[in-house]
Amino acid sequence: MDYEAYFANELDGVREEGRYRVFTDIKRHRGRFPHATRFLGEEETQAVTVWCSNDYLGMGQHPKVLDAMHATLDECGAGAGGTRNISGTNHYHVELEAELADLHGKEAALLFTSGYVSNWAGIGTLAARIPGCVVFSDALNHASMIEGIRYSRAPYKIFRHNDIEHLDELLSDYGPDVPKLVAFESVYSMDGDIGPIAEILDVCEKHGAMSYIDEVHAVGLYGPRGGGIAEREGLMDRITVIEGTLGKAFGVMGGYIAASSNLVDFVRSFASGFIFSTALPPAVAAGAAASIRHLKESSEERECHQDRVAQVRRKLDMMGIPHLANPSHIIPVMVGDAHKCKRISDWLMDNHGIYVQPINYPTVPVGTERLRLTPSPVHDDGDIDRLINALSEIWSQCELARMATAA
Amino acid sequence: MDYEAYFANELDGVREEGRYRVFTDIKRHRGRFPHATRFLGEEETQAVTVWCSNDYLGMGQHPKVLDAMHATLDECGAGAGGTRNISGTNHYHVELEAELADLHGKEAALLFTSGYVSNWAGIGTLAARIPGCVVFSDALNHASMIEGIRYSRAPYKIFRHNDIEHLDELLSDYGPDVPKLVAFESVYSMDGDIGPIAEILDVCEKHGAMSYIDEVHAVGLYGPRGGGIAEREGLMDRITVIEGTLGKAFGVMGGYIAASSNLVDFVRSFASGFIFSTALPPAVAAGAAASIRHLKESSEERECHQDRVAQVRRKLDMMGIPHLANPSHIIPVMVGDAHKCKRISDWLMDNHGIYVQPINYPTVPVGTERLRLTPSPVHDDGDIDRLINALSEIWSQCELARMATAA
Repeated sequence: MDYEAYFANELDGVREEGRYRVFTDIKRHRGRFPHATRFLGEEETQAVTVWCSNDYLGMGQHPKVLDAMHATLDECGAGAGGTRNISGTNHYHVELEAELADLHGKEAALLFTSGYVSNWAGIGTLAARIPGCVVFSDALNHASMIEGIRYSRAPYKIFRHNDIEHLDELLSDYGPDVPKLVAFESVYSMDGDIGPIAEILDVCEKHGAMSYIDEVHAVGLYGPRGGGIAEREGLMDRITVIEGTLGKAFGVMGGYIAASSNLVDFVRSFASGFIFSTALPPAVAAGAAASIRHLKESSEERECHQDRVAQVRRKLDMMGIPHLANPSHIIPVMVGDAHKCKRISDWLMDNHGIYVQPINYPTVPVGTERLRLTPSPVHDDGDIDRLINALSEIWSQCELARMATAA
Repeated sequence: MDYEAYFANELDGVREEGRYRVFTDIKRHRGRFPHATRFLGEEETQAVTVWCSNDYLGMGQHPKVLDAMHATLDECGAGAGGTRNISGTNHYHVELEAELADLHGKEAALLFTSGYVSNWAGIGTLAARIPGCVVFSDALNHASMIEGIRYSRAPYKIFRHNDIEHLDELLSDYGPDVPKLVAFESVYSMDGDIGPIAEILDVCEKHGAMSYIDEVHAVGLYGPRGGGIAEREGLMDRITVIEGTLGKAFGVMGGYIAASSNLVDFVRSFASGFIFSTALPPAVAAGAAASIRHLKESSEERECHQDRVAQVRRKLDMMGIPHLANPSHIIPVMVGDAHKCKRISDWLMDNHGIYVQPINYPTVPVGTERLRLTPSPVHDDGDIDRLINALSEIWSQCELARMATAA
């Protein structure tokens, strides 16, 4: 078989479908983020403003985070040097896990190299290692959760997105002795909607199911101490497993689960993706811990974040630029066509140095292609005005539909 | 179902089998590694010497690596802020991928958050996405490769460890049109033996199979530029995919594959574990690139490494301490009993501050329990003598068998 020809042909197919990804090569500027330099090959560069980062609060450039990372690099060196079991457990990992357990009011927490791995290994291990376990998964769950379920080879049922009655109905098919795991998210990344957590927990409790919530787009951002939507709604103690990330609002890298000591110890003892991976660099753990500690005590960033989000929404409304209403910080500006979406994104970048990645199928359904804006406390009024004016200009140029304006 | 009771009971089972892992909580001292401080809870600490790290060359404390990380933290901040496709591609990732492609003489390379993920996603994507692909896997392949095969759900055959004839025989069952992927390692982590790469490649070429080599325990350590065993033996251009890590000899974190542009682009475009993970922190990428660049030009660390390994082996021989002969840098001191292995490890730690993790079942077969020593250029003569003398003392105390001594 001609493997090269096969790869080339498959890639051509991806290109034809308009799904071929060209990565935008940038350098973020610490202290001036969301400003960055884009590299265009050879010597050419362009000044850009990033409007699609998941460093939601700009914590990636917070002095406390960077000071902790510098200090730990000097104290402990670069890498962990091993898996957690073979010389790779650094005291900063232990401290970070205690910080995370405290953040979520749980007995214990466990670090993974990414949020993806935490979901894959967390769900995968629970569903595979509890004999007879059945998984109930929200229809819009993230790829990492779906892969965790797939990994486990446990039987699973998909409930309609945020549909409590459907979940209840599916759970009713299994008796009280059947182990059950209900997996869902708080803030869904692409639509920015928020799951009905309390109602889901009611149903879980009614059927004796474990609950597993992915709060990666919420930790640091919601709740009095940044514990996420479940903290804000006073629900953390009713949730079996809270999964989160250190790579979005906390600004660094890594993922985790927080749960009871026994559950965490169980995953720690059996999850292949945990056991056989080199641990996170101590400096990454120290930086993440500094970020969490800061956001436990400071609500300023969260308040400013919400204010920026509201301001962008208000100005989009004034211009009649259609965006999906939702109760979160994610603003999907709806375009509804893959090629237009890409063209608008390219035009914003080329003409205004505004970087918003187009989100097309298969990440979102065909016909709902969008620009996903993520305003942050580090976007100032000038950044916002430039974004809105540029969007309005291209909306006119492309003769895109506007909503009735608030003005 | 009582989940808590189930977890507790399973953990009791692990404890009874002597397989319960207690992580050793340490802080490595940058500039003084292999020396570290062990944390024993509350205020108690102990000075220890690490003898089981995979930071094989001590590059985790190399000034060039740390300077690059400090500079990049100040330049770009802590995290990447997104997946590679959504604002997370930093210029340091692009430069590192070019450095890795060059290291292995390949057209392209692709970064992952860990070596585990690179194997899982690399093998998983190739085997799943090439219709009809059959995988041929060495019996002692690492867990991450096995999970990649399992993920793909492709049919697979396991060939006896390093057994070319068995591989040839298995491949012969499939015609030339059947896509085939042969997955193996260069240095096997637990026994430290090295695969017969040239012969495996002969068989792959005879049957039109792709070859996938895991060089995580070899990159940085072997070959004139640290390209691994395949570089040393002049075989890199015959291998389809070379997989490696940035978290062992290079001293930082992350994994990668290097291959043809089309193959790398194919994995980049389809691998869920790549697409949906936040990118490595720019400082991690910059540190790894600095490490690779240094080890491309400097053989001093590799030579000193081999010298240290030879010295430990020689002294073990003089004392008659049994260790597994192999042509690599990994020295398995054979104990052959799980409880004794653990007891010796504890005694070395408690009485001499010597940290060697016991390696028991299921990581190695029952009856081959061992202490896995990894000497490095940063272990000085005094460290080595203390290790050997302590081992000799406990060997006498436990009345363990000695080999005929060279003395």
